[in-house]
Amino acid sequence: MWSNAQDSALQERARAVIPNGMWGHQSVALMPESTPQFFTRAQGTRLWDADGNEYLDFMCAYGPNLLGYQQPEVQAAILRQMELGDTMTGPGPVAVELAEALTGMITHADWAIFCKSGAEATSMALVTARAHRGRRKILLAKGAYHGAHPWNTPRPAGTLPEDRAHLIYFDYNDLDSFADAVKQAGDDFAGVFASPFRHDTFTDQTLPDAEYAAGVRRICDEHDALLIVDEVRAGFRLSRDLSWAEIGVDPDLSCWGKVLGNGQPISCLLGNDKARKAAGSIFVTGSFWFSAVPMAAALETLRLIRETDYLERIREIGTMFRQRLVQQAAEYGFGLRHTGPVTMPMVLFEDDPDYRFGYRFSDTAMRHGAWLSPYHNMFINAAMTPGDIERALEITAIAFDDIRRNRASVQPSAKIAALLPR
Amino acid sequence: MWSNAQDSALQERARAVIPNGMWGHQSVALMPESTPQFFTRAQGTRLWDADGNEYLDFMCAYGPNLLGYQQPEVQAAILRQMELGDTMTGPGPVAVELAEALTGMITHADWAIFCKSGAEATSMALVTARAHRGRRKILLAKGAYHGAHPWNTPRPAGTLPEDRAHLIYFDYNDLDSFADAVKQAGDDFAGVFASPFRHDTFTDQTLPDAEYAAGVRRICDEHDALLIVDEVRAGFRLSRDLSWAEIGVDPDLSCWGKVLGNGQPISCLLGNDKARKAAGSIFVTGSFWFSAVPMAAALETLRLIRETDYLERIREIGTMFRQRLVQQAAEYGFGLRHTGPVTMPMVLFEDDPDYRFGYRFSDTAMRHGAWLSPYHNMFINAAMTPGDIERALEITAIAFDDIRRNRASVQPSAKIAALLPR
Repeated sequence: MWSNAQDSALQERARAVIPNGMWGHQSVALMPESTPQFFTRAQGTRLWDADGNEYLDFMCAYGPNLLGYQQPEVQAAILRQMELGDTMTGPGPVAVELAEALTGMITHADWAIFCKSGAEATSMALVTARAHRGRRKILLAKGAYHGAHPWNTPRPAGTLPEDRAHLIYFDYNDLDSFADAVKQAGDDFAGVFASPFRHDTFTDQTLPDAEYAAGVRRICDEHDALLIVDEVRAGFRLSRDLSWAEIGVDPDLSCWGKVLGNGQPISCLLGNDKARKAAGSIFVTGSFWFSAVPMAAALETLRLIRETDYLERIREIGTMFRQRLVQQAAEYGFGLRHTGPVTMPMVLFEDDPDYRFGYRFSDTAMRHGAWLSPYHNMFINAAMTPGDIERALEITAIAFDDIRRNRASVQPSAKIAALLPR
Repeated sequence: MWSNAQDSALQERARAVIPNGMWGHQSVALMPESTPQFFTRAQGTRLWDADGNEYLDFMCAYGPNLLGYQQPEVQAAILRQMELGDTMTGPGPVAVELAEALTGMITHADWAIFCKSGAEATSMALVTARAHRGRRKILLAKGAYHGAHPWNTPRPAGTLPEDRAHLIYFDYNDLDSFADAVKQAGDDFAGVFASPFRHDTFTDQTLPDAEYAAGVRRICDEHDALLIVDEVRAGFRLSRDLSWAEIGVDPDLSCWGKVLGNGQPISCLLGNDKARKAAGSIFVTGSFWFSAVPMAAALETLRLIRETDYLERIREIGTMFRQRLVQQAAEYGFGLRHTGPVTMPMVLFEDDPDYRFGYRFSDTAMRHGAWLSPYHNMFINAAMTPGDIERALEITAIAFDDIRRNRASVQPSAKIAALLPR
């Protein structure tokens, strides 16, 4: 029988020594009640919480788990480098090998700078774009997440209007809106952030329009402004190259993180030769940015990305999950919007404006052993098998059946009621 | 015979795929010519470069190495947690244990938020201080390093005046200058950053005046502004509590990093109950901020800090190094300014305004196996023995003798000539 007594006890202890009991995107503050806050173990596709409950994990650590938790070859690479050295008074040769590997794989990239989080990579991109021609205006799609530094955090408490000075917002996939923003920037247009596709929370995902992407590239070139693609969340789940490689648009800068070391802490900014001088002019650093172990993990992760069929497998598994889940929903009388790339699905219910069905669905799935998010895109990892999807569907059947039986009495989650427009 | 052929070859490869060949504080761009950029191995007090040269390392990875590289008990804690899980869809219970350990050790601290770099901790402190009373002005000591985000990077390329809006600078250890800054802030005074002592580069270090520290505390209280101590560089090298514990001044917030996991990537913001609500109101996060392995390493590092005589030993070794080095310098006819805490010494030559002797000294020491900085404070670690200091003194004797013999012909380093005032 599912129980969360241990997790509740840990949450109680946490509230004493951590503001609100947890900070940031891994706080379960907005998740359904049954979501465990803490995990004691992870292996392959599975997580275990402090109460011993096992979860088939569709969140993949919010992205980093690309090849499966504790992937043996990556773990071996970590151990090999650990025996030599990690955080030293300089980087290891692996820093050069990793930069060579990335510039060899990512078409637009001529150089790399490594850091420890996606937000550090996007902040470096912002500063590099401004340094490129000494201009100030940075264009961003409305609602897009690019990190939680003062200039881009989605919750502005403690930040100032000045932190967002010279940022101009436009509508994703709308070339007219982008052109208006460029006009507004005038001769002060430094650069533009683009997500490889629209993956905002609580909303359907949208793939990029090829004409839009090509138009953004053309207009950036006309103004010698830098085009930045933020691959932090999507990197290597759509392509072995940049996600936009298939639509043939190369950025000047791209930001990577999450999957880069299959869970080891490493992110990076990649750039082309046009942006090299600007990137070399800025001063950015961090205590652990040069550590060798995460770089060794990344080098091995990249080798597995190049040499295995991980991408074909996550596409196949993602397609199976999408088709079967939508079909199952229909069988229980629900419309499901399963949007975005199959390897990074957002799953939302039709006719569910206050997310009450989504929350109830996720809550039931959690109690039966599947970690599913009601508001954030999920992730497929390469350790998942058709058997895992069958197992997931057994769980989701219970969750659909529960809502069907209790349709009239399901209430919206108090946790998000305050966030919704009235 | 010392050679750097392999390191030079790696630097050449690096220049192709990394802007300037390396970024940030571990770039050897400002270091003497012989300084290796890359290290292949680290153990205890020693580093090895790609050419197989061994170095007695007084830089300690720019701080993180507190207990010795590859400290066995910390390594064992890392391996134990690695077998369970690292970056998962939530933190491990170790997040709670670590927050409990820190709030148990650091007098002023009632809560913790973990992150991955010192700059993330100082940025969180900035935002928290502003959120506390909705005020904007942050006071900082001139020349103090608090990270390399747009608001505090020492090299402003790519940043805007707006990034530093509402920052007011004053002179460290000067209560009148601080009071002037407070007056300038008026009713918009949000908080003040204080380094536990003055540890700027290229200059003598200065210990804090107890009256100054107490005055800053009193004035902050009068205005309900938050006092932030930035312990990122100095933490646990002066005390098992906050560095200011001995002078009896408790901050509201403190920023920690570097040594926290003895080299594992973990930093944190600590705060008292007064600042808890503000810290809970901000949104800050990072992909790897919840990873369990660095937290397990930190928990074990803290245990060793509490239960061993590491602090007494680094003080003893640091005192021996200071006394013997200054004495040796005098024997060779040089005045040496060996300033700051003995566990974090800055070593500068008297009558060396363009640092030519310091650079020559460091260059010779490097070629004979001691990593010594001519412009940055160094660090003593707990693996160092009296025998290591004797070995260092054999090397520094060669370096002093070289300058004595070549005094008239030593030229200033071209690397820093451009940085010096004309």
